[in-house]
Amino acid sequence: MIVVLTGGTGGAKFVQGLEQVVPAAQITTVVNTGDDLTWWGLLVSPDLDSITYAMANLLSRERGWGVEGDTFSCLQVIGRLGGPTWFQLGDRDLAVHLMRTQLLAQDKTLTEATETITRGFGIASRVLPMTDSAVETQVMTPTGELSFQEYFVRERWQPEVTGVRFFGSETARPAAGVLEAIHKADAVLIAPSNPITSIGPILAVPGIREALKETPAPVVAVSPIVAGAAVSGPAGKLMQAQSLPVSVEGVARAYADFLDVLIIDERDACGASGVESLGIAVSATKTIMRSSGDKEVLARAALEARAFEKRPSRER
Amino acid sequence: MIVVLTGGTGGAKFVQGLEQVVPAAQITTVVNTGDDLTWWGLLVSPDLDSITYAMANLLSRERGWGVEGDTFSCLQVIGRLGGPTWFQLGDRDLAVHLMRTQLLAQDKTLTEATETITRGFGIASRVLPMTDSAVETQVMTPTGELSFQEYFVRERWQPEVTGVRFFGSETARPAAGVLEAIHKADAVLIAPSNPITSIGPILAVPGIREALKETPAPVVAVSPIVAGAAVSGPAGKLMQAQSLPVSVEGVARAYADFLDVLIIDERDACGASGVESLGIAVSATKTIMRSSGDKEVLARAALEARAFEKRPSRER
Repeated sequence: MIVVLTGGTGGAKFVQGLEQVVPAAQITTVVNTGDDLTWWGLLVSPDLDSITYAMANLLSRERGWGVEGDTFSCLQVIGRLGGPTWFQLGDRDLAVHLMRTQLLAQDKTLTEATETITRGFGIASRVLPMTDSAVETQVMTPTGELSFQEYFVRERWQPEVTGVRFFGSETARPAAGVLEAIHKADAVLIAPSNPITSIGPILAVPGIREALKETPAPVVAVSPIVAGAAVSGPAGKLMQAQSLPVSVEGVARAYADFLDVLIIDERDACGASGVESLGIAVSATKTIMRSSGDKEVLARAALEARAFEKRPSRER
Repeated sequence: MIVVLTGGTGGAKFVQGLEQVVPAAQITTVVNTGDDLTWWGLLVSPDLDSITYAMANLLSRERGWGVEGDTFSCLQVIGRLGGPTWFQLGDRDLAVHLMRTQLLAQDKTLTEATETITRGFGIASRVLPMTDSAVETQVMTPTGELSFQEYFVRERWQPEVTGVRFFGSETARPAAGVLEAIHKADAVLIAPSNPITSIGPILAVPGIREALKETPAPVVAVSPIVAGAAVSGPAGKLMQAQSLPVSVEGVARAYADFLDVLIIDERDACGASGVESLGIAVSATKTIMRSSGDKEVLARAALEARAFEKRPSRER
């Protein structure tokens, strides 16, 4: 079993590649829910949705989120009625949020609701939220605190960031199956997602970081930083705000206490020694996923990195 | 001010005609909410929606409900995920239910939510639900009780009906503005809606029937029964279940305690004497509304019926 810790955008592409080289039934994704929001009265879980749509081969290639070819008729009428439209939900996408909201209202857990939705789409892999508890990523700025989606979507990640916190994480519990999956995995892969606000919330759930330290499985991360910048989104800005260098070494530092191997882009070969100095092995490949072939190459590189010698646990 | 008591289908056409001859700002509709349902977790008010869409010139001409040219993408995905689809909501239509559900969750009344929605669509007339209380029309059949939409939509009004009741009506209160509108009206019109399950729930709200008896305004109804059958839907079956003849006289009997004038179809002229024997004046015209011109003719006939002498109140 391959376990993947992931956020939405880069992670969705990464799991699509993984599905090309590993049977879907052997993949368990553990997905960030710190970005979740209540929107138009519905519970929206952007990263769970991106992973679900990626696995169902429904993810919009053009937008990178939502359903391919979706329409926005409901959104247009919401706008006409004076409702908020800065966070966009497509008409097909709405069905998932309506289903999830109803299942939660019927006292199902987010894990159970996600299982119902992924099965409904015929997805053979297991998609787990990091937690069933409410954990909310909050971005501190000089003018006040924003929810992640306010920062990322409404403000287009332009405000200066002075800090990030995961509200509710102290009392959160990993979703059923998460710790077991990490302990029993053949490999744990960290997708090329934002280390601060995509992987960070997962690591903030008590027990998950410890499981990553203790699992006998090799832990392999793919760097979302290429040539000194994030492949997409605000990862660079957020790493700086957390006093991490915007480099493969910065990524390695974020994961230093549990990581065995970091997959870096060939262009970052000069940064390898900094990573290795942390006791983390390095494998360089092409990490930008433009085509289906790119995704497959990266997935293979991540799986081959399992062969690297695991760090003795005493070093961690 | 013209007050119209109305359900969805026939009533929506009737108010469209009325808007052709009276400024919209002079029209107040009092709308049946006994058909309301919770669907996909949203509060759906089919008759309020039909009247709203009719007033906004958005009502589907083909279907008679929902938004003209609407798509059903969300519904298709709901079905794929195993959700129920026998009650259909279009993508544009969904926006109204999302808005209403959120406004009610924010402790707004249905009257306030309806005002926000109708204003959002630029509607100049006043659209009032009959009540802000929960009143549920229940249809008794030999195999058990059905909600109105289960009977009407899911079962396509095929089950035998043994009775109808308006659950919750005993303790319901008229929505703010309803009684005042009836008392101060220049005319109260009863749309050609189903007397049992469209107008019946309105009359079951304590205070409304009394207001209709006491108002100095003439009360004029349009018969939804033409040539011994309902123009559309189950009005005939439901009148029979309530021991009313399926005729203009049956309609007159349903409203006998407050009605001044009944507009009947020319084809029912032979039934006029039965209506008049109840002390109700009769005006015959063309009542089937196929064209915009038909709607206008009927609206004018209803307004002209105001000139009939009002029944002395002692007779009521």
